[in-house]
Amino acid sequence: MRTIRDIGEFGLIQQLQKQIPLAGDDCAVLPGGGLLTCDPVIENIHFLPDTPARQVGWKAMARNLSDIAAMGGQPQYAVVSLGLRPGTPVRWVRDLYAGLHAAARRFGCEIAGGDTAHVRHEQFVVVTLLGHADRPVLRSGAKPGDVVFVTGELGGSFRSGKHLRFTPRIREARWLVEHVRVHAMIDVSDGLASDLRRLVEASHVGFNIASAKIPGKLPGALTDGEDFELLFTVAPREADKVQRKFYEIGRVIKKPVVLLDGAPLSAKGYDHFA
Amino acid sequence: MRTIRDIGEFGLIQQLQKQIPLAGDDCAVLPGGGLLTCDPVIENIHFLPDTPARQVGWKAMARNLSDIAAMGGQPQYAVVSLGLRPGTPVRWVRDLYAGLHAAARRFGCEIAGGDTAHVRHEQFVVVTLLGHADRPVLRSGAKPGDVVFVTGELGGSFRSGKHLRFTPRIREARWLVEHVRVHAMIDVSDGLASDLRRLVEASHVGFNIASAKIPGKLPGALTDGEDFELLFTVAPREADKVQRKFYEIGRVIKKPVVLLDGAPLSAKGYDHFA
Repeated sequence: MRTIRDIGEFGLIQQLQKQIPLAGDDCAVLPGGGLLTCDPVIENIHFLPDTPARQVGWKAMARNLSDIAAMGGQPQYAVVSLGLRPGTPVRWVRDLYAGLHAAARRFGCEIAGGDTAHVRHEQFVVVTLLGHADRPVLRSGAKPGDVVFVTGELGGSFRSGKHLRFTPRIREARWLVEHVRVHAMIDVSDGLASDLRRLVEASHVGFNIASAKIPGKLPGALTDGEDFELLFTVAPREADKVQRKFYEIGRVIKKPVVLLDGAPLSAKGYDHFA
Repeated sequence: MRTIRDIGEFGLIQQLQKQIPLAGDDCAVLPGGGLLTCDPVIENIHFLPDTPARQVGWKAMARNLSDIAAMGGQPQYAVVSLGLRPGTPVRWVRDLYAGLHAAARRFGCEIAGGDTAHVRHEQFVVVTLLGHADRPVLRSGAKPGDVVFVTGELGGSFRSGKHLRFTPRIREARWLVEHVRVHAMIDVSDGLASDLRRLVEASHVGFNIASAKIPGKLPGALTDGEDFELLFTVAPREADKVQRKFYEIGRVIKKPVVLLDGAPLSAKGYDHFA
């Protein structure tokens, strides 16, 4: 019997997408421009038992804010589902909520409700966000010739602790959708190599990335994951407006492959089930 | 240091509600009548390792549909967050989704997206639902003199397996909001005794319940939990319209206590952290 380990996270998501017509992007896009997204944060995977609860809360909210940013959207309301061990200090839960609230408020979002349940082993936090975008930016719009950008430094997020206190790129995304026509966008959550492949699959185009232009040390900048920077493409005529603010890292090509300095790059990004 | 076990689920939720202005009902009520709710379903708590995956999916969706029903709302879109062990068969996940889809479609709701992550121990399913109600029914509107109803049989849900295949009372709720003015409503998820207490806290009124009128065997009908019937109150002048369809079980009184046949009833409903 095939298990999730056998087909990996990509394989599983591809299977599930056949059953979910609106899925396949960082958020579900609802009629009228509504955005709905949820993302679990789990003990021993996304945080450790001794990670300060406030940082766990910040991360759980910020990951979802990052998904709204990746659509060029504005977050509006959140609900929070907690799986907690009975022996957890009440103080821990209060601190967790302080982190959740801090991240939400900073980006104009309100926590509207939540629920809790009992777990025996790994605690978890699932934040669901409702947001809005007048014209949601999808993963599927990249065109050959487009210039490829990222909003910030990639790699080393676990080592540096950035994964617990990163700034979701809501403001950068809002600037982008107001000033240029972004063709395709995604947040780099599983590593540049892996998330470029997602754009390949959605846009049916390829990428040629210049290693020297990637902001961050290789190979970590390609594969570490949890960077939560935005990766996006714009038409060449709009590139110079963007160059002043963000990092140009390559070009969109016709052939649906990912190249690094012209040579094929395997997807070694983070797979949750590997 | 006080733990969640020390203050119990009610205590924890009371603590958290101070920080969440829109919370305190079965769903968060958003400006414009939007309803947002999420509810975790966890292995070894809400289902067992050998529970058929399709039933797990049905239950995870139906619990949330029940929360939308409790507000008199119509469900619209769902997103699903899964915590899965890598060794789980792909088939199990497909069956889970079949159950999720079956419950959603039956009540006019669409699964719009989802995410998965890796767990080592307990698997979980968190469904978040977005719905709508022109005039959401809150827990806080019960008035002394109101007649109290439930939509169906209470108790024995775990023993009978009803907790895995119950019908969320979306249609009953829609009928109610179209035909009478419902003053207060909640779904009976933690047992009648426990959920009556929630109405006491929200409405600042009390209840006198007639044991002989409760549809179901005592004491299970008071305390078993996971019934997912609706508990609601209407003004006496509207009661006969409702009596033809549902079970009248008592009256709203002024004093904020729960009485059974006139004697105080302790809240022995299900507490997730007890």
